[in-house]
Amino acid sequence: MRALLCGSFDAAERDDWLQALRQAVPEVGWCLEPDPEVEVAVVANPPPHQLQGLPRLRLIQSLWAGVDRLLADPTLPPDVPIARMVDPAMSAAMAQTALWSVLSLHRGFFRYAEQQRSALWQPLPQRRADEVAVLVLGLGEMGRRTALALQAQGYAVRAWRHSGGAHAEPFEVGSGPAALAPLLGRSDIVLNLLPLTPATRGLLDQAFFAALRPGAALVNLARGAHVVDDDLLAALDAQQVGHAVLDVFHTEPLPPEHRYWRHPRVTVLPHAAALTDPRSAAQVVACNLRALRGGEPLQHLVQRERGY
Amino acid sequence: MRALLCGSFDAAERDDWLQALRQAVPEVGWCLEPDPEVEVAVVANPPPHQLQGLPRLRLIQSLWAGVDRLLADPTLPPDVPIARMVDPAMSAAMAQTALWSVLSLHRGFFRYAEQQRSALWQPLPQRRADEVAVLVLGLGEMGRRTALALQAQGYAVRAWRHSGGAHAEPFEVGSGPAALAPLLGRSDIVLNLLPLTPATRGLLDQAFFAALRPGAALVNLARGAHVVDDDLLAALDAQQVGHAVLDVFHTEPLPPEHRYWRHPRVTVLPHAAALTDPRSAAQVVACNLRALRGGEPLQHLVQRERGY
Repeated sequence: MRALLCGSFDAAERDDWLQALRQAVPEVGWCLEPDPEVEVAVVANPPPHQLQGLPRLRLIQSLWAGVDRLLADPTLPPDVPIARMVDPAMSAAMAQTALWSVLSLHRGFFRYAEQQRSALWQPLPQRRADEVAVLVLGLGEMGRRTALALQAQGYAVRAWRHSGGAHAEPFEVGSGPAALAPLLGRSDIVLNLLPLTPATRGLLDQAFFAALRPGAALVNLARGAHVVDDDLLAALDAQQVGHAVLDVFHTEPLPPEHRYWRHPRVTVLPHAAALTDPRSAAQVVACNLRALRGGEPLQHLVQRERGY
Repeated sequence: MRALLCGSFDAAERDDWLQALRQAVPEVGWCLEPDPEVEVAVVANPPPHQLQGLPRLRLIQSLWAGVDRLLADPTLPPDVPIARMVDPAMSAAMAQTALWSVLSLHRGFFRYAEQQRSALWQPLPQRRADEVAVLVLGLGEMGRRTALALQAQGYAVRAWRHSGGAHAEPFEVGSGPAALAPLLGRSDIVLNLLPLTPATRGLLDQAFFAALRPGAALVNLARGAHVVDDDLLAALDAQQVGHAVLDVFHTEPLPPEHRYWRHPRVTVLPHAAALTDPRSAAQVVACNLRALRGGEPLQHLVQRERGY
């Protein structure tokens, strides 16, 4: 079996991936340029046209968890199955960043950093974790794992998802647009881990921020396009949003002149909340490649019409 | 039974404590000024002489976990038992601050904050938690709970204590002065939760920092007097210590002109890692007061000669 590795990474990253994949699936012939024998494309945000003209292509395996950019490529072959990356190391990293964000907000560590700049010594009142209501938006692999990790730390966790029916989670789950505003009004911290789809693009807008408890915090670890930036900046300036931790942006890298960089109550992270780890991700790719060869069911297939 | 509440808190704090204690132990007569009927003194860093001339005093119950300042008071009645505070809410808060510090160091969040100041977008390499070796100094209530919390997050946890024999912990434990340097040389992050005693005062000195892995980080949540400040500053300037998170200082509040405030690789917290919570601490006091009245064993008694 012949597999193509392609994407928008630099040479060092590409070599890391190639080494990890060769080690995990030595029986596959790995190539870096398209050729007609390719049956599998392992991709990380590939440039357009890369996946055209591959007559034997049977699987597009993404190395990224979010496939919104991939699906937006009009040159993507229409009938080839696409699999998302569900990497346990990446989910663990996401839960760490979420927990760090929530601890920072709950225990005032962003405010202490600001106090340090003016040598101000002022302990803040201390709340218990169960007095802090955290709403997790999105109940995919990462949303669910993050919600459980926060609950294990004692936080009062609830979750919301855009669609989906029955569920059996150890925390309250709201589903559908009508359930969102009431949950926002009961939350101190809102943590976004939604997939980016036509239904969730721009969801975090003026109406969303107006439904929050005054002074609540936002943590966005999903996609920049979930947020209407002007609405968030207005809500921050009005203290309706007390603080925002933002890892993702409409344009990345975030342009140096953007107001987020300098806003005193915005924490900017460089899309680093959770990186795929080549060591564990290569094992996930190996599973799907072996399933493909053996005619067994593939894991984590994308429903294109749903968008994830 | 008559009980005295005294300490160096402001009126609002004192009222919070009095209300919580009255609610937890309504059968006790609480007073704020010494009188000869007092059998129990519930104290938070009381000024000297406050506990003299109380002929019926049978218990000094501290509201603070650390009793080093209390024991340093030469006017302390010599033969009255002293109990430390072991408050579950305080232990939880300490574990939160420790976890936040370790996550911040492990995932580069202090460096991202510095990058934000110059609008620099630069993701850092991502390690898994099991690739980060954390050494916890001290295995009291808070050290032990913190070590377990870090281990539950996947960190490679070891612990060290100054003395003590057999132990059955789910992580490696070194004991005694000779075991310290080898453990320091195997650690990425050292987290201090030792009690302050004559044996541990000034332990974090030039020799201690020289034994670290170059670039390792220090988190001090115990007492300022554990650290020789000039030695730590020299180790930071030489990059032998990569970053320090300091919650406690020789002089508190930390004087505005102190170099720690302005050092780019020092995070200053205003002795806020873990505050006693009057609601749960009052329950702990209630247990000991009832034990005293019923002639049952008291909890968390201090061994004065040991210092904690």
